[in-house]
Amino acid sequence: MSTGKEAQIFIDGEAGTTGLQIRERLANLPGVAVPSIDPALRKDNDARKEMLRKADLVVLCLPDDAAREAVAMCEELGDDGPRILDASTAHRTSGGWVYGFPELSAGQAEAVRTAKRVANPGCYPTAANLAIAPLVKAGLVDRSFGIICDAKSGVSGAGRKPSLKTSFCEVAENFSAYSILDHRHVPEVLMNSGLDEDEFSFTAQLIPIDRGILETIYFRGTEATTAEALLAAYETAYAGFESVRIYNPGQVPDVLAVARTNYCDIGFKYDAKTRRGVIVSVIDNVGKGAAGQAVQNLNLMFGFHHFEGLA
Amino acid sequence: MSTGKEAQIFIDGEAGTTGLQIRERLANLPGVAVPSIDPALRKDNDARKEMLRKADLVVLCLPDDAAREAVAMCEELGDDGPRILDASTAHRTSGGWVYGFPELSAGQAEAVRTAKRVANPGCYPTAANLAIAPLVKAGLVDRSFGIICDAKSGVSGAGRKPSLKTSFCEVAENFSAYSILDHRHVPEVLMNSGLDEDEFSFTAQLIPIDRGILETIYFRGTEATTAEALLAAYETAYAGFESVRIYNPGQVPDVLAVARTNYCDIGFKYDAKTRRGVIVSVIDNVGKGAAGQAVQNLNLMFGFHHFEGLA
Amino acid sequence: MSTGKEAQIFIDGEAGTTGLQIRERLANLPGVAVPSIDPALRKDNDARKEMLRKADLVVLCLPDDAAREAVAMCEELGDDGPRILDASTAHRTSGGWVYGFPELSAGQAEAVRTAKRVANPGCYPTAANLAIAPLVKAGLVDRSFGIICDAKSGVSGAGRKPSLKTSFCEVAENFSAYSILDHRHVPEVLMNSGLDEDEFSFTAQLIPIDRGILETIYFRGTEATTAEALLAAYETAYAGFESVRIYNPGQVPDVLAVARTNYCDIGFKYDAKTRRGVIVSVIDNVGKGAAGQAVQNLNLMFGFHHFEGLA
Amino acid sequence: MSTGKEAQIFIDGEAGTTGLQIRERLANLPGVAVPSIDPALRKDNDARKEMLRKADLVVLCLPDDAAREAVAMCEELGDDGPRILDASTAHRTSGGWVYGFPELSAGQAEAVRTAKRVANPGCYPTAANLAIAPLVKAGLVDRSFGIICDAKSGVSGAGRKPSLKTSFCEVAENFSAYSILDHRHVPEVLMNSGLDEDEFSFTAQLIPIDRGILETIYFRGTEATTAEALLAAYETAYAGFESVRIYNPGQVPDVLAVARTNYCDIGFKYDAKTRRGVIVSVIDNVGKGAAGQAVQNLNLMFGFHHFEGLA
Repeated sequence: MSTGKEAQIFIDGEAGTTGLQIRERLANLPGVAVPSIDPALRKDNDARKEMLRKADLVVLCLPDDAAREAVAMCEELGDDGPRILDASTAHRTSGGWVYGFPELSAGQAEAVRTAKRVANPGCYPTAANLAIAPLVKAGLVDRSFGIICDAKSGVSGAGRKPSLKTSFCEVAENFSAYSILDHRHVPEVLMNSGLDEDEFSFTAQLIPIDRGILETIYFRGTEATTAEALLAAYETAYAGFESVRIYNPGQVPDVLAVARTNYCDIGFKYDAKTRRGVIVSVIDNVGKGAAGQAVQNLNLMFGFHHFEGLA
Repeated sequence: MSTGKEAQIFIDGEAGTTGLQIRERLANLPGVAVPSIDPALRKDNDARKEMLRKADLVVLCLPDDAAREAVAMCEELGDDGPRILDASTAHRTSGGWVYGFPELSAGQAEAVRTAKRVANPGCYPTAANLAIAPLVKAGLVDRSFGIICDAKSGVSGAGRKPSLKTSFCEVAENFSAYSILDHRHVPEVLMNSGLDEDEFSFTAQLIPIDRGILETIYFRGTEATTAEALLAAYETAYAGFESVRIYNPGQVPDVLAVARTNYCDIGFKYDAKTRRGVIVSVIDNVGKGAAGQAVQNLNLMFGFHHFEGLA
Repeated sequence: MSTGKEAQIFIDGEAGTTGLQIRERLANLPGVAVPSIDPALRKDNDARKEMLRKADLVVLCLPDDAAREAVAMCEELGDDGPRILDASTAHRTSGGWVYGFPELSAGQAEAVRTAKRVANPGCYPTAANLAIAPLVKAGLVDRSFGIICDAKSGVSGAGRKPSLKTSFCEVAENFSAYSILDHRHVPEVLMNSGLDEDEFSFTAQLIPIDRGILETIYFRGTEATTAEALLAAYETAYAGFESVRIYNPGQVPDVLAVARTNYCDIGFKYDAKTRRGVIVSVIDNVGKGAAGQAVQNLNLMFGFHHFEGLA
Repeated sequence: MSTGKEAQIFIDGEAGTTGLQIRERLANLPGVAVPSIDPALRKDNDARKEMLRKADLVVLCLPDDAAREAVAMCEELGDDGPRILDASTAHRTSGGWVYGFPELSAGQAEAVRTAKRVANPGCYPTAANLAIAPLVKAGLVDRSFGIICDAKSGVSGAGRKPSLKTSFCEVAENFSAYSILDHRHVPEVLMNSGLDEDEFSFTAQLIPIDRGILETIYFRGTEATTAEALLAAYETAYAGFESVRIYNPGQVPDVLAVARTNYCDIGFKYDAKTRRGVIVSVIDNVGKGAAGQAVQNLNLMFGFHHFEGLA
């Protein structure tokens, strides 16, 4: 581990979308250095190990399997190994890692601060969890009806690897649904909201835009649920977290409201007579949904305020 | 009323999107003539009355209030007045007009054939009704859970009148929800599906594309519901209607599947274990959602096969 | 060669954009049959040879090298081999093939009618040649200044093969220039306009749209050049060709004017005082720029009017 | 005039695109305050005069006529009146104002620093002037051939006022040319490059993107011109100005290279054999083309480095 004054951060996978964006944001942070690996050696394991050895913390911006391999390399280093923030899905719902979602609870934020291993949340689950968890916890949702999350994402959520599915002529002037009822991000939402699998329906959909996620979430309230109670549940949950902005009842955000920011904006409409509720939750999938959330976690891991260097 | 051999059709409001598109489609139909009004006289009521007098049938492509006024003009003509197909929302759920939706039932198709007054359906309700009505009628939906319709439309659905909401810089790279739980098209869906108001939740959303509607519809099945039963219900309902195409269970269409066509494509996924069902219904809002549907109705009103001249 | 009553056309490469679009257009033509090869055998040379043997005419929708191989196969068949229309660039400027551009001259149209080997023009050269050739031939251009063609194309011009360059997130909200002064299509323009290489500058650029080419072309007129003379040169050149539409001086088309059509629309502005001329030429690159032009040539090769089945 | 410690800046027209963007950028500058007018009083002349009286400097983000009226109000205040930076076209080429384009020359930068009246350049002229002026001044352009500027802009360049021309369905999937040979921005380019009117051809075109300008500029070199000489001319002209970035010969920028920045990126290709040169110049029309350039000028007017608070 480094003994220098500046904390050394190595981004393993720095050439991908998330890696690039994390580097850009870290440029605003004092007291951290982010040395680059020689591009020619990015896949050279000896060079990577050397980077890992020198790092205080490594951010993994890699596919799941490569992330698992990088973790194994770190473990070979024993106590000299760096702390790890993994942006892949490999360690989010298994392996005993701390889930890097400080907005969930004060305890969760504290756990991130001191953790050696933190899993950075997925983009779809971030928008869903922030909208759903406080209401379920506050008992304002009639769980017998289930919760439906109709999610839409910009194309950058699919990564930079060229594919027919993300080519311009297939996406422009189109809109499509995929992974209906079996999206791989669902377990992350269940884990954080406490919902059972049959209580949660999720559909992913592709919007012809670069960046942004909008999720429209449907639920039934309990007899006690009111618009005021919903607002209060959100405000209580996110007191102290400027990363989440709650709208007045009846007002909902659009994707541009959070473009290129680290905010999750949430609005809702509730009809007390029929107990039908609709929530709209938006994030920038590259920002709050990936790199911004990673920097929030890094801030905590280095003892900064969670929103330092973000906007 | 004309006594000539060709049926005379007057499109009142021929300069708008729907009027232009109807004219284009009617060019394929034999036995009908579509005379134009002098553009300078489009708002001259004497000239319009003269056109109405000569017409066998008038298609109203007008705002609601103007449509009501045009109907009043026709009624002044008494028995000489033309048959009317109204593309506005003015007469869809009130006034005793025939709702121009032949796919609903054999009786409905027959009613359109002979009607003097036909209301052309709205774009959102068309995609919703075609997906929902057969399943409700077949008793395959657990109505106590309600049905949720998360609808998305291209921008042409908002008409050609310039507004900040439909300007390029507001729409591109954006996605937004509006009219949550109170969209004016909801009564049309209730009327045709037999659902009560509190059983149906509808959200309209704007996709940054020109044409196309995709609706993601969520329901709970009954104990008897299976994917096979759902498929059978659709196939029974739409036998003889090539305007509706049903996909194999688990397959769903995207917007491009129906671009510039008169088809409604419907696919669904059903999880019998948890009784959760998700339907995806797509149309071209300018085609099947407006001008194409109008020509389907005109075909019936003039004794043609419903899909004549369409594709 | 087939002895049946219907002319047999085989599209070698029918799964690509151009192949699919040609098939769609041929469905409107009487007297021709377009049998499909078993998809599993598309790359099986024995199966392809069998298709070639049975065909009266083959349309090659293949990369250049594959097109050359297909021609070799046809030649092995000797007199039994089919006529060939090649949509690749392999035979446009070399090999003695007839260049399939009937609008160039009455002689060219006649040559296409009887040719055994026809090369279908490229998309960029089609819009350029139609705009430039008549003016150069009529002596209305001061060649010492050269002609500049600033060309812009939608993304479908790059084909369906996924690449980073054509992925949504690289193209949307972007605009880029490529192949400046060395585009491979330049020789086609020189061949048809009679310009020398140093008299013609060409820049290709990518517009974030699916379909459409717009070329802005700059020239200096001679002392005798007037707007009327330019108009007359175009009208003379394209008399009898509804595929080219000339606008009144001062009026220019946009891309949507020709979307999904087989038209080339041309408008220009000429300032006689300074002898500066600007031409705007637009086509649908998939239509008039590829499949539509192919069908124009097929029409001639089978003795139809050139615009049969097109719009 | 204010006697407080912080310089007081009033943005007259703060609700428009440019006004909003200037305010956002000024938030990064120390020592300046940007008080807001009560939104209800934005068109109240007494309230505006009061704001003008208190301001050290006013930025006019208004239509041309309104800008002229605001200047008259300032002049009524005599010596108490604020310095003025006018973002409209009203004072760019007439009236004796300083043209706010410090990259033109050291003298120009010095003039901005001390001026009471500065006209902020237009978006199209900025990209054109930066690309053309150094080459003309260095004698590397054969002016007898003229210079052709084929310019393309995103839709935000047309302002926020709704119009059919900028509505989504007219712009998306389209590309169009306008103001051919008579664009109102041409005099600004002539003034700065020293070209005569008949030496410069300009075409404006609309790209279906929100932000960004790309100009493709064509010229003929002199006998002495080489790629190296062109590069040297640019590097000499922009030494000390990080706002302009010059690419290596043969490399050209795209629109995304400068999105949301204050940079003008310039690349070119030159064929010495035929003396044909092609330049590609890109800016963000909202940034370097409007608000960024305004802040560059404000920086100079307040004694800061020109790029302070920009990126």
